[in-house]
Amino acid sequence: MNKATQIFGLRAIIEAIHSGDTIEKVFLQKGLRGSLFKELEQAARKNRISVSYVPIEKLNRLSNKNHQGAVANLSPIAYQDLETVAQNVIDTGKTPLFLLLDEISDVRNFGAIIRTAECTGVNGIIVAKQGAAPINGDTVKTSAGAVFKIPICKVDHIKDAVFLLQSMDIAIIAATEKTDDNVYDVDFKVPAAIIMGSEGKGINPSVLKLVDRRAKLPLLGDIESLNVSVACGAFLYEAVRQRM
Amino acid sequence: MNKATQIFGLRAIIEAIHSGDTIEKVFLQKGLRGSLFKELEQAARKNRISVSYVPIEKLNRLSNKNHQGAVANLSPIAYQDLETVAQNVIDTGKTPLFLLLDEISDVRNFGAIIRTAECTGVNGIIVAKQGAAPINGDTVKTSAGAVFKIPICKVDHIKDAVFLLQSMDIAIIAATEKTDDNVYDVDFKVPAAIIMGSEGKGINPSVLKLVDRRAKLPLLGDIESLNVSVACGAFLYEAVRQRM
Repeated sequence: MNKATQIFGLRAIIEAIHSGDTIEKVFLQKGLRGSLFKELEQAARKNRISVSYVPIEKLNRLSNKNHQGAVANLSPIAYQDLETVAQNVIDTGKTPLFLLLDEISDVRNFGAIIRTAECTGVNGIIVAKQGAAPINGDTVKTSAGAVFKIPICKVDHIKDAVFLLQSMDIAIIAATEKTDDNVYDVDFKVPAAIIMGSEGKGINPSVLKLVDRRAKLPLLGDIESLNVSVACGAFLYEAVRQRM
Repeated sequence: MNKATQIFGLRAIIEAIHSGDTIEKVFLQKGLRGSLFKELEQAARKNRISVSYVPIEKLNRLSNKNHQGAVANLSPIAYQDLETVAQNVIDTGKTPLFLLLDEISDVRNFGAIIRTAECTGVNGIIVAKQGAAPINGDTVKTSAGAVFKIPICKVDHIKDAVFLLQSMDIAIIAATEKTDDNVYDVDFKVPAAIIMGSEGKGINPSVLKLVDRRAKLPLLGDIESLNVSVACGAFLYEAVRQRM
């Protein structure tokens, strides 16, 4: 993240949050107190902005300005509204294909997934406000710039996106090993959204019970899981194959 | 790479090379001269072992022993002989599936590819002695341990492996955008070996002209290429689908 996408100072960050700027993350000085500090914490919490409490040395490395114990990273992209993006796809007569990411927190995997999604004609990527990897310089680089070419939508919870997409007759297909169905048995020719879970935990159980279909990639060896960006690519290219 | 997989000292490394130990890389002190030094350089060159000339400070960081200007990283795995591995697969009556990597130099991509190959039942991975990512601690980690579960073969040149596999009636399929054929149009049910090229340069033209088939993944967006480990996964899972 270069400094041009950074803001600093308690009041400045509070104002940025209130004005609707897309803030990826706020770094606050550990142990700081005061009414402005509290106001910033509340504004971040209300807007589900990720906050890290760090030693002052880390803040000094992030910014050589008078940061008052607060530095925020702005997003290099503008997030889009999921309902608007989905409705636009439906209006053009195309068969929607969306990708939901449930707490993919590794920046390189996130970047590779965005790149693959752009290459496979995905109409939009959906992430939750908390738990997702930030969109920073590394994400931009590993996405090969795809981050600027595909709509990315942020929702309060992945469940909100599931309900919204289902209400628009878009089937939610979970990539999970908790099923007997192979990815090749699932129909991707219908309006569909694929959910990928985090490498460590997979898809959150409370999300998994809402989905319309589950599908797995066959694992023919001893290793029990694939890298999530590789698995995502195999799912998306199966959708491409079926739709060709 | 932890220190247990390191050796140091000119004579020790020369002996290790002559005894056939699998050395990933030799670090030599820049500007050093002498007959033993020359002997080590020649032994490394003859065995196509990658050599880096580095400042003494780097060697001191690599080893706190009396390294005499030479440190070598040993491979955590024993490379296998391609002809033996391929013949074993044929003898068991299985349809071979091999993966050739032409100068994949990024360790994380290499690890992810090894992991995917193990998950898709690939019988062996082939790399060239020069230009390939080393098998080190990061490779082991990103492969999720798959590096210990799948045969890996090192050849002088990728071309040698192409000729050998073709002589055993294994078709060489290149993953390349330089074709009109989609991956879905190619028959993977025959004995096959897939070649993946490096992210920057793709497959070496002198290798590409030897292959039996070329296939590409459709790219439906503006971005002109996929991450190589993602592309490799899409190829391998298409082979899995066809063979199911």
